[in-house]
Amino acid sequence: MRLATVRLPDGGTRAAAADGDDWRLLSAPTLDAAIAAGDLSAQAAAARRTGERAAAADVTLLRPLLSPRKIVCCGLNYRDHIAETGRETPRHPTLFAKFADTLTDPGAEIAVSGSSAVDWEAELAVVVGADVTRATVADARAAILGYTIANDVSMRDWQSRTLQWMQGKVWDATTPLGPVVVTADEFDPADGARIETLIDAEVVQSSTVDQLLFGAAELVAYISRFLRLSPGDLVLTGTPSGVGLGRTPRRYLSDGEVLTTRIAGIGELRNPFRITEDGTVSA
Amino acid sequence: MRLATVRLPDGGTRAAAADGDDWRLLSAPTLDAAIAAGDLSAQAAAARRTGERAAAADVTLLRPLLSPRKIVCCGLNYRDHIAETGRETPRHPTLFAKFADTLTDPGAEIAVSGSSAVDWEAELAVVVGADVTRATVADARAAILGYTIANDVSMRDWQSRTLQWMQGKVWDATTPLGPVVVTADEFDPADGARIETLIDAEVVQSSTVDQLLFGAAELVAYISRFLRLSPGDLVLTGTPSGVGLGRTPRRYLSDGEVLTTRIAGIGELRNPFRITEDGTVSA
Repeated sequence: MRLATVRLPDGGTRAAAADGDDWRLLSAPTLDAAIAAGDLSAQAAAARRTGERAAAADVTLLRPLLSPRKIVCCGLNYRDHIAETGRETPRHPTLFAKFADTLTDPGAEIAVSGSSAVDWEAELAVVVGADVTRATVADARAAILGYTIANDVSMRDWQSRTLQWMQGKVWDATTPLGPVVVTADEFDPADGARIETLIDAEVVQSSTVDQLLFGAAELVAYISRFLRLSPGDLVLTGTPSGVGLGRTPRRYLSDGEVLTTRIAGIGELRNPFRITEDGTVSA
Repeated sequence: MRLATVRLPDGGTRAAAADGDDWRLLSAPTLDAAIAAGDLSAQAAAARRTGERAAAADVTLLRPLLSPRKIVCCGLNYRDHIAETGRETPRHPTLFAKFADTLTDPGAEIAVSGSSAVDWEAELAVVVGADVTRATVADARAAILGYTIANDVSMRDWQSRTLQWMQGKVWDATTPLGPVVVTADEFDPADGARIETLIDAEVVQSSTVDQLLFGAAELVAYISRFLRLSPGDLVLTGTPSGVGLGRTPRRYLSDGEVLTTRIAGIGELRNPFRITEDGTVSA
């Protein structure tokens, strides 16, 4: 299944399952709520019975998850990206967090004020579908609901201010997510789908998602050793080589450029980038 | 005012305001909900009119905030603690995140399985009372609802596994919070209240909260440059010297020890520490 949260012409939102070019509307108002309610196949079957649907042209795709309670991100997780940072191959996943408010929608403008080093990081995002605590890798794999796309847009000038990356990683509404969640029965990272970032028409990152050092299920299992992951939580798995920081000379996003993030078999995110007036004030 | 979330004898929870040794019960089920609803003075006044109250002996104090949307923590923020880590005085706050599930209650057992280096970090915690975005320090100060106590219990063996500290900082139910939120009209960090950690009867950290390098309002203003803080969000301001990692020889919590965290004028947290069987499995 291909699942989404859609905005309807009346302004409301609904969880939806793709049906050809159209959407079957589930009863839940968001995919978060649908996931929390359990059996998505049953909800999709119910939607077929009610016959509630919307044409693709009539809806706007929102980030599929509006308010995950936990977003855990892994850095330094593609062999090619590790090489470009000049670091050694890590023995453990390098983890950091984002907030629900860090996410933004497919198609949404990414507006940044106060950074002059905005970089891109295409990522495969894992959507957790069940409670996971101290899981084996096999159990973690079984708890993965599906996969979507994220771009861990990073303010490098802020990220490098301290030992911890957080202040370059959690700017409101800067991490696009979506456009759909493809369930794990239809997408397997081991199949090596291509992952790419484009700036306007230029491909700046291109790799395959089977190049992950720590795979999706391995990450979920690792994280579950110290915290419980719950339905609707997100794990961002890291980015391949080709980020602006790793280029000579370095390159960052410019006002008006369009950031496209795509993974074959899932879809693509297209987000215009906007540098806004720095409204920062200091007392 | 001294505010709390209390568990009543019937098992329900309520926001509450201290009245002598007793609690006036607000209508909101949690302090999170009361803060989201706005004017706490009006809610406390309404509670005086309804006369709903509970004797201190009849309630259990929970962590005052059950589900903050954002918890932002600052490391390396006391001059004495910076010295014991051997690092230079930072130019910017060193920030990392916790999740709501990382928090636990006053009096709750802190149970850890899978770490042999569990350390303590007494911290002053700031409770945000209004939306804060790109604020001046003065505006940030005005948006602080009040203060409480946290202990950023840290699994040092995990924390040091990678460049990022997260996997040592976000273990479920390991950061005690509370027991009450003292509103900003009654508590000012500039007055230099004493902050201490005790293990059983031994004082292992003792400093004053005016020794913060980046003050409470300064931190809130800084964070608000890249994300919106909202009512009920938490900012943990960092810990003074005396952590186990900074000792020679190093010292960590042992099974059965009681961790007491206190700040004069707010109160104290007493949390028994328990090493549990490591239930980790690997596939």
